[in-house]
Amino acid sequence: MKFKIDGEIIDRPAIWWENGVVYMIDQTKIPFNIEVFSSSTYREIVYAIKEMIIRGAPSIGAAAAYGLTQAVHEFWQNKDFENLIDKAYNEILSARPTAVDLKNGLDVVRKSQGLNPEIALAQANFFAGRIIDEGLKIGHIGKELIKDGIKVLTHCHTGSLALVDHGSAISPLVQAWKSGRRFHVYVDETRPRLQGRMTSWELAQYDIDHTVICDSFSGFLMAQGEIDLIIVGADRVTRNGDIANKIGTYSLAILAKYHNIPFYTAFPQSTFDPSTDSGEKIHIEERSVGEVMNVTGFSKKHNTIDEISLYLENTDFRNPAFDVTPVHLITGYITSQGILSASQLEDSLT
Amino acid sequence: MKFKIDGEIIDRPAIWWENGVVYMIDQTKIPFNIEVFSSSTYREIVYAIKEMIIRGAPSIGAAAAYGLTQAVHEFWQNKDFENLIDKAYNEILSARPTAVDLKNGLDVVRKSQGLNPEIALAQANFFAGRIIDEGLKIGHIGKELIKDGIKVLTHCHTGSLALVDHGSAISPLVQAWKSGRRFHVYVDETRPRLQGRMTSWELAQYDIDHTVICDSFSGFLMAQGEIDLIIVGADRVTRNGDIANKIGTYSLAILAKYHNIPFYTAFPQSTFDPSTDSGEKIHIEERSVGEVMNVTGFSKKHNTIDEISLYLENTDFRNPAFDVTPVHLITGYITSQGILSASQLEDSLT
Repeated sequence: MKFKIDGEIIDRPAIWWENGVVYMIDQTKIPFNIEVFSSSTYREIVYAIKEMIIRGAPSIGAAAAYGLTQAVHEFWQNKDFENLIDKAYNEILSARPTAVDLKNGLDVVRKSQGLNPEIALAQANFFAGRIIDEGLKIGHIGKELIKDGIKVLTHCHTGSLALVDHGSAISPLVQAWKSGRRFHVYVDETRPRLQGRMTSWELAQYDIDHTVICDSFSGFLMAQGEIDLIIVGADRVTRNGDIANKIGTYSLAILAKYHNIPFYTAFPQSTFDPSTDSGEKIHIEERSVGEVMNVTGFSKKHNTIDEISLYLENTDFRNPAFDVTPVHLITGYITSQGILSASQLEDSLT
Repeated sequence: MKFKIDGEIIDRPAIWWENGVVYMIDQTKIPFNIEVFSSSTYREIVYAIKEMIIRGAPSIGAAAAYGLTQAVHEFWQNKDFENLIDKAYNEILSARPTAVDLKNGLDVVRKSQGLNPEIALAQANFFAGRIIDEGLKIGHIGKELIKDGIKVLTHCHTGSLALVDHGSAISPLVQAWKSGRRFHVYVDETRPRLQGRMTSWELAQYDIDHTVICDSFSGFLMAQGEIDLIIVGADRVTRNGDIANKIGTYSLAILAKYHNIPFYTAFPQSTFDPSTDSGEKIHIEERSVGEVMNVTGFSKKHNTIDEISLYLENTDFRNPAFDVTPVHLITGYITSQGILSASQLEDSLT
């Protein structure tokens, strides 16, 4: 991802390694400040994961791989190497509770044959590189859908920050823009956590024309003929083609069907879960009601990033983290193996 | 409306007259503080309307009527009475740009035969009382839809604060609860202006069970069988039965149709506009993008109500104030004349 920092444009992924130091874009500051967090030891990686300086499952996986690599470098000369690496492994593993990508990133380094500093780094780079490659492929394959002059709606954040680089649903937009096509993107703000502002920030780095809207505006825009295409990401794709994704996706898919607007989902291969038959089997996680209750933003009065409560203390909330969109509402699946139909998913992605 | 203030429960409308003083619940402080603003002269009424201490077209109309009544009391002994009243009339009229209800409230007082302090007050009370009566009728007529144990979704604020007392879509809920029925209300937060927190506050005054949700959650809740009925208000109802209402209403109506959930609108007679054939004729107002950009809430850190910006300064937004829901998505119309079908509107309401 190209981004502007201190007036300079640099091209960097969400996380990268340079001379033993791991750098990452501090996601807690986006979009208000663009700061790079640097980690010299795996302990700072643990801190960065815990404090959500790095977010998005694939980016967290890469951070874990680079963190364990830092531990290998630190303890390589120590006679207690194996125990110290196991300790570091477990510390990093426990940094976030839902740890599938995190564990994959750690195992890529830990389980490598003849582990040493050089091999560890090669493995971590391989892990991060595979995510980057897949995002880029999704972009080049998906960009055929982005015709000149169209208006595209996207939901939540599916960009470089979450997927090391390129992203999923955003990637076709970026590649189409880079290839000279011009179009307009509507960005849902995606309450409660306002991931739309990260999407808006990323699109702004490429100067891609876009407009932020509240989540409730989409139906009206569809009725006005303002939306030609919808692309969202996915948190899990089941064997039959149902998808679990950020709450609000299901409503958008129904509205798209009603207005006859094509509805696509873009995701890396690791998101496909052939072991789950259909979306009905997916447990919907309810997250902290504080996410609905409180928001952060920039306070002009205090010239700082502040948190405010939108509701009274004793208010009752629901906060389902995602919803399930059934296969019959989905036009196609944008993957590194092509734009697939539901019936092609299992053969192409396993 | 009953509300709790300084630990005491009192039963008051959004605005009332007492010994020459006009009292109103300060809507800029809801839900964080419950304060009563008092106005001793029409100039303070102008201030209250301008500063949105009183909001909602019918409530603003009542404020205007009481404000002009205060002017009549103030200038009654003055030999320049007529000119001073005209001046007060114009000052109040210019307090808010979209002035239909405001003007109606003023004219009820200004155009009364043999204007004097007593007649002015009688007219202002008549104007406010008519709104109150209609809200109560809507409540008693609409409550038949609120069966024991059901789950109802509502959108935006349609309560006492906006309609002097009782409200429109909220009124059937309040009357059903008062008659002993027990049910659950889902309150859409209604971005950008979060009118859902006023609805939540009003429901809390009656101890009505309710849960606040983000606007994007509704589809998911419908899919889970969590919503049995939807009631919204209306800003304008055209002759054919199309309605203009707060942005997001149209999406809810489509989602309701998809899930086979009854969708009702409740509104006072003055909202019916037989001079407009259909919703296509309604101009959709775009409001200030600052409404999407900035939100107010309670800052624990600073122990005050603060405003923060959710987005960067140069972000592009859309902010349509309302949308149009076509007649074929609406199950019925809850009015003071009964629960009507679209074909009954013109005969019953004109």
